[in-house]
Amino acid sequence: MNNFIYDLSTKIYFGKGQIENLPTEIKKHGTKVLFLYGKNSIKKIGLYDEAIKLLNKNNIEFVELAGVDPNPRLSTVKEGSRLCRENNLDFILAIGGGSTIDCAKAIAVDVFYEGDTWNDLYKFGKVDTIKKVLPVGSILTLAATGSEMNRNTVISNEETEEKYGLGCDLLKPKFSILDPTYTFSVPKNQTAAGCADILSHLFEQYFNPIKKGFVSARIGEAIMKTVIEYARIALKEPDNYEARANLMWAGTVALNGTASAGKPGDWSVHGMEHELSAKYDITHGVGLAILTPRWMEYVMNDENVYRLADYARNVWGSREEDDKAAAKEGIAKTKDFFLSLGIPMTLKEVGINEDRLAEMAKKATEFYKIGAMKNMDWQDVYNIYKMSL
Amino acid sequence: MNNFIYDLSTKIYFGKGQIENLPTEIKKHGTKVLFLYGKNSIKKIGLYDEAIKLLNKNNIEFVELAGVDPNPRLSTVKEGSRLCRENNLDFILAIGGGSTIDCAKAIAVDVFYEGDTWNDLYKFGKVDTIKKVLPVGSILTLAATGSEMNRNTVISNEETEEKYGLGCDLLKPKFSILDPTYTFSVPKNQTAAGCADILSHLFEQYFNPIKKGFVSARIGEAIMKTVIEYARIALKEPDNYEARANLMWAGTVALNGTASAGKPGDWSVHGMEHELSAKYDITHGVGLAILTPRWMEYVMNDENVYRLADYARNVWGSREEDDKAAAKEGIAKTKDFFLSLGIPMTLKEVGINEDRLAEMAKKATEFYKIGAMKNMDWQDVYNIYKMSL
Repeated sequence: MNNFIYDLSTKIYFGKGQIENLPTEIKKHGTKVLFLYGKNSIKKIGLYDEAIKLLNKNNIEFVELAGVDPNPRLSTVKEGSRLCRENNLDFILAIGGGSTIDCAKAIAVDVFYEGDTWNDLYKFGKVDTIKKVLPVGSILTLAATGSEMNRNTVISNEETEEKYGLGCDLLKPKFSILDPTYTFSVPKNQTAAGCADILSHLFEQYFNPIKKGFVSARIGEAIMKTVIEYARIALKEPDNYEARANLMWAGTVALNGTASAGKPGDWSVHGMEHELSAKYDITHGVGLAILTPRWMEYVMNDENVYRLADYARNVWGSREEDDKAAAKEGIAKTKDFFLSLGIPMTLKEVGINEDRLAEMAKKATEFYKIGAMKNMDWQDVYNIYKMSL
Repeated sequence: MNNFIYDLSTKIYFGKGQIENLPTEIKKHGTKVLFLYGKNSIKKIGLYDEAIKLLNKNNIEFVELAGVDPNPRLSTVKEGSRLCRENNLDFILAIGGGSTIDCAKAIAVDVFYEGDTWNDLYKFGKVDTIKKVLPVGSILTLAATGSEMNRNTVISNEETEEKYGLGCDLLKPKFSILDPTYTFSVPKNQTAAGCADILSHLFEQYFNPIKKGFVSARIGEAIMKTVIEYARIALKEPDNYEARANLMWAGTVALNGTASAGKPGDWSVHGMEHELSAKYDITHGVGLAILTPRWMEYVMNDENVYRLADYARNVWGSREEDDKAAAKEGIAKTKDFFLSLGIPMTLKEVGINEDRLAEMAKKATEFYKIGAMKNMDWQDVYNIYKMSL
């Protein structure tokens, strides 16, 4: 196993009714809150009213900022940090899915950052220059990104058509409230895309030809099996608590460091997908689902096939004795699974044609080749995009 | 899934050479240290010298207390807390296995506790009366108890021949340093007992007839598979880094809340074993290994057999289609596995005969019936002890 530091400082309140802990938790960290959310869904489910009522009852001041988009934008981040500075806000409460939480983290950095946030931090990764951030807390409404318990944020710059991630320990939420009932009303397509996102996080940490970190690989498989078990149940029975709860917790554990502890990963599919959603604003989870089986097929070779075979046997129960045959079965089942969730499984279906494939492939490999199962240059990425049309 | 709070505040430094972080971490929490360890093993492997050198070089004062026993004793706890008070120590560094870390936690409580520690806290569980404790940090030298990342301590009272656990959030170590090379020299019998202890923790969280917490059950299986994969390798090749590393991390994740999140457990085998080691001072992991397969056999019924069958299929790869047949295969494989590690698998082999079985069975069920797979009274416990002779 590789050396690692495991430091999960976010306190999780999981389960029905846990919102009652909101005022106490906010008061530990701040006094005047940026109340950040996306569109109207939190109003439809009554969560908006519930949270506002708790803040008012506990005399916690706040300023609202609504309208965070999926693939959250740099312009929203800038607006949020302006609001924080102008109103002397000292805490950010994100209510929503990963986009809202990512946006909150990005605001938390931008408030104090004196350089060019986009270029310094997102594009060139000078994370060490971050000295101070606002504390963030979250109430999660979508099982997907894991942002509720990790150090990462991904932001899109709509002007430059770029999308980059940033990771910094200071950005871990102080607390996150995970109440599965808030996800009962998530529409089918978003539920499906969220499940694809969770699986993709697990794949990125799992797939690597180096045989290190058995325990983390097995834990990754355990969470994959959970998503596979409950995704279809949640689509059929949107208010099945056990299904929603397992998916919600799966999404959190999938990307809080537990499935990667001491284990090298791959992360090329995310790199490839970020180009798609930066240029075409498609749903991140859908882009990941489309690319994943093609990527698996493309990168498979004699050295790494054992890992794909492990995946097929341990996650999908393949009984093929030959590694290559097992791997192929696993890849086919992966694609079938995404199809069974109703995810459009070609780029064309989401409005992407051949036009900008080469441009995106070059951008995805602008700074270095990507991936560990196969270290890929732009031509490789281009080939995978083509296979995905 | 049941509601839960997940709050893993212990910072883990995992891997070779991580001891370099010791001075910085201590200085975050204290200035004058109780340096606590067991027998001579940390001297043999050079860890004692290494730690002392780091403390001296960084001008961190300390007072030594050596001689913590396996099944750590209340008398040592009392001696430690006296040392802390007399020398105004403000931090406890535990170097050793679970016994030393448990002892450190117990000292951390006893230093400030004004009531009768044993009766109030261990025997009658009035944990809310704990208001203040000393901060604890650890350097782990044995893969077993998980105490390095949790809120629990188990202490033996040699005068009353009692052994009880205590759990309190304040007792989570501030940091733990997990360097697998420190476990290279752990003798075969202790390595085996440690593996049995880890498996038993997983069993206690896993076995329950209620179908809740799929994801945590699967994660439990993942860690079980890790122990099974690497225990025999570590016995054959004591300095196999990957084996020792996987076992070490398995022991930590096995009992830090991840395998029980939202999921009810059982915990009766620990209750039964504590009587054995309280009365006969046997190795805890050995006692657990002896009782486990007999307990599985004894409690199996129509309602819970599916869980034993899941265990057999997912952990041992059983292909029996009938639940009962699969369960029996899993139980047999569990016993065979412990035997293959060289663990004495009868009570007689560890010096326990019929004499005190009834007394221990009554004591184990003194306050309430124990267990969830089957809720057991003293007669049930007595029957399992008898089966284990």
